[in-house]
Parts: sequence; C-alpha cells; structure tokens
Amino acid sequence: MRGVFITLEGADGCGKSTQAARLAERVAATGREVVRLREPGGTSVSEKIRALVLDPANDRIAPECELLLFEASRAQLVREVVEPALGRGAVVVCDRYYDSTYAYQAAGRALPEDVIRRANALGSCGVDPDRTLVLDMPAADALARATRGGADRMEAEGLGFQRRVSEGYLRLAAEEPERVRVVDAAGTVDEVEARLAAELADLLPGLLAQNAGGE
Amino acid sequence: MRGVFITLEGADGCGKSTQAARLAERVAATGREVVRLREPGGTSVSEKIRALVLDPANDRIAPECELLLFEASRAQLVREVVEPALGRGAVVVCDRYYDSTYAYQAAGRALPEDVIRRANALGSCGVDPDRTLVLDMPAADALARATRGGADRMEAEGLGFQRRVSEGYLRLAAEEPERVRVVDAAGTVDEVEARLAAELADLLPGLLAQNAGGE
Repeated sequence: MRGVFITLEGADGCGKSTQAARLAERVAATGREVVRLREPGGTSVSEKIRALVLDPANDRIAPECELLLFEASRAQLVREVVEPALGRGAVVVCDRYYDSTYAYQAAGRALPEDVIRRANALGSCGVDPDRTLVLDMPAADALARATRGGADRMEAEGLGFQRRVSEGYLRLAAEEPERVRVVDAAGTVDEVEARLAAELADLLPGLLAQNAGGE
Repeated sequence: MRGVFITLEGADGCGKSTQAARLAERVAATGREVVRLREPGGTSVSEKIRALVLDPANDRIAPECELLLFEASRAQLVREVVEPALGRGAVVVCDRYYDSTYAYQAAGRALPEDVIRRANALGSCGVDPDRTLVLDMPAADALARATRGGADRMEAEGLGFQRRVSEGYLRLAAEEPERVRVVDAAGTVDEVEARLAAELADLLPGLLAQNAGGE
C-alpha cells in the first residue's frame, strides 16, 4: 500500500497548524501511521539551509538563489523523509509545500511564474501531493489573526500582499481542481476540521467515522 | 558595449587554471576590464553554500539537494558578479560553469540528464556563456596530472569516470558548435594558449595581436 501525501496551505493566521494537528490525530485514529512535517525544514540539512537563508548577514541574496535554496531544502525533505514514509504506506501531512512557494512568490512578483513552476518541479523531485487543502479566509481576517502578537513580517507586507497570496492559491485550485481544494476557514476549529475531513474522505477510508464533533 | 562571457571547462588536471590566468592577462593587454572567477564560489553567500555541501556532517545529502545547492550558488554569482560585470562591458573569464554540472553529473549518472539541464537553466538565470572552451586531453593523462600530488577524489572515481566526463563535454560541443569549442590540451602552455586565443578571435578583437609566443 502506497501512502497518502496531504499538504495544507493558506496565509499565516488561517489556522493551518491547528488543523494539521487535528488531521494527524484523526488519521492516526484510523490505525495508519502519520508523519507530520512542516516546511521549510524537517531534516538536518534542510535546517542548515534555512539558517543560511534567514541569516541577516546574507542580505545580498538574489531572489533566484533564495528560491533554489528553498528547493534544495525541499528536495532533501522529499528524498529523506517523504518518499520513505509514502513507501511504507504512511500518511504524510505537511504544513506548506510547493504551492506556498508559488503563491508567495507570485504575490511578491520577484520572479516570473514559469521560473517558480520549474523550480518547484525540481525541488519536489516530482513528488506531488495527493491532495492539497487551502484554508481560505478574507485576507484582512488572516492578517489580523497573524499579527495579533504584534508587528511582524506579514504586517509590513500588508493587506495587498495577502490578497495576492490568496489569489495565487485560488488560481492553483482552478487549474488543478482534483488535487487542490479550497476550504472555508471561518467558524469553529471543529467545523473547519470536519470540512477538511470531508475533502479527504475519498483518499482516507474511515476518516469521517472519526467525526466525534459538532457536525 | 556589452561584455563577453567566456568559460573554461575540462577534467581536473587539464590545465584550466593556468590557461584562465594566461587568458585574463591577454585580454587585459587589449585594454579591457577582465573579471576572473571560479566555480563553485565567488560570493560570500556562494562560499557558505559550498561549505554546507562539502561539510562531511551532511553525508546524507540527496543528489537533487546537492544539485540545487550548486545552482543556488551559481545564481548568486550570476546576479551579484557576472551580470553587473557584463553590463559594464567587462570580459568575464570563469573557470567552470554549468557545463561542468552537466558533464560531471552525466558521468556520475546520479540524476537524469533533463533534470540537470533544467536545473542549469535556473541556476544560470538564463545567462549563457558567449563561448566555452573545453580543454581536451586523454582521460589517462588528465588523471595522471591531477593525481600527481597523491590520492584524491578523482583517483577514487577512476578512469572510467574521467572518460564519461570527457564524453559529456564532446556531446555538448556537438550540440552547440558555435558556443562550445574543443581545444587540444596537449603541447606547451604557450601552444595551448594560442589555440584558445584563436577560438576567441571573433569575439575579442585584438586578442591575436597579443601573440608574443611560440606560434
């Protein structure tokens, strides 16, 4: 049995991390192995690459260099963790994957779209998610949630940037409706969890039977 | 006036470094600015990436990750050094560039050829050499020269590997005869230098007038 590769996407503040944890529990309750990951990072090499990108000393880093570093980190995660996990039949739940690179770079417009797509194809080593769940909420709400703790990177980038990120995700969902599903992130955590589970029912038998909650 | 981008290629031991120095002097004598570079490396960020790749602690590094790290380093070199130099009309002489990635990876067969080509296109940011000079010598001679100082990586990889590297370069020359020129590396340093200069005469007026030596 080959595993199932699920990725969660959306703006910071949309509730991805909470839902990834819920989803992992729900899958585990069906008796399957779950591997929960978060990009960027997840391997020793990937963490070193991440540190290099984030080091303020490297402020002259070119957009193409940064993109290729993220893809290198991704390739290591895929080969070292994701593929072996899928090979032994596990369900991999990854908080962000290559669609984040697309949505955020497209929003920033630092690089042409075709460059991002080609880089994503290389960094993923051709390993595509079986399903990608985009947690969608109005950009202003996501921004308010993400910046609750004070000013940060997101606040500086502002509402226009967040709107472009959301638009990027919606474009992907229109292009690949089978893989990419947009899920309304409004409502209680239980409500959103049930919506996500419904979008995975065809891939993960028994998942809806775990519906203990409010639906 | 746009600059001229020249790359030198060939097996270790073929005399590239010596010839790069000679070529740089010869171009400078025509009154043009020369920027001499060596891959991998050449910028602060690129050197850090190089250190990460070479760190023995990172022994689990996947071939795709390694390739993308080299391409990230290359992208930084291109954006930070090569493009600005070409923009101000300089002649850039680079010891190894993306054809090395192709020839060595193709020889090692760790990755499919189309993956290498697509990665090279991204890492170079579309900046192709105006001319690439491949210093060609029998693999056994190059191996003997390169390992003169004792056992090293090359010796371990052996003669078969060196032959495949050479074949990779010859394939590129057959595909792109205008850009890639194979030059016989046998003979004295002066003789080889004159052969290289002859292959650049159309791009660099005045270069052959610097022929003081033996031809």
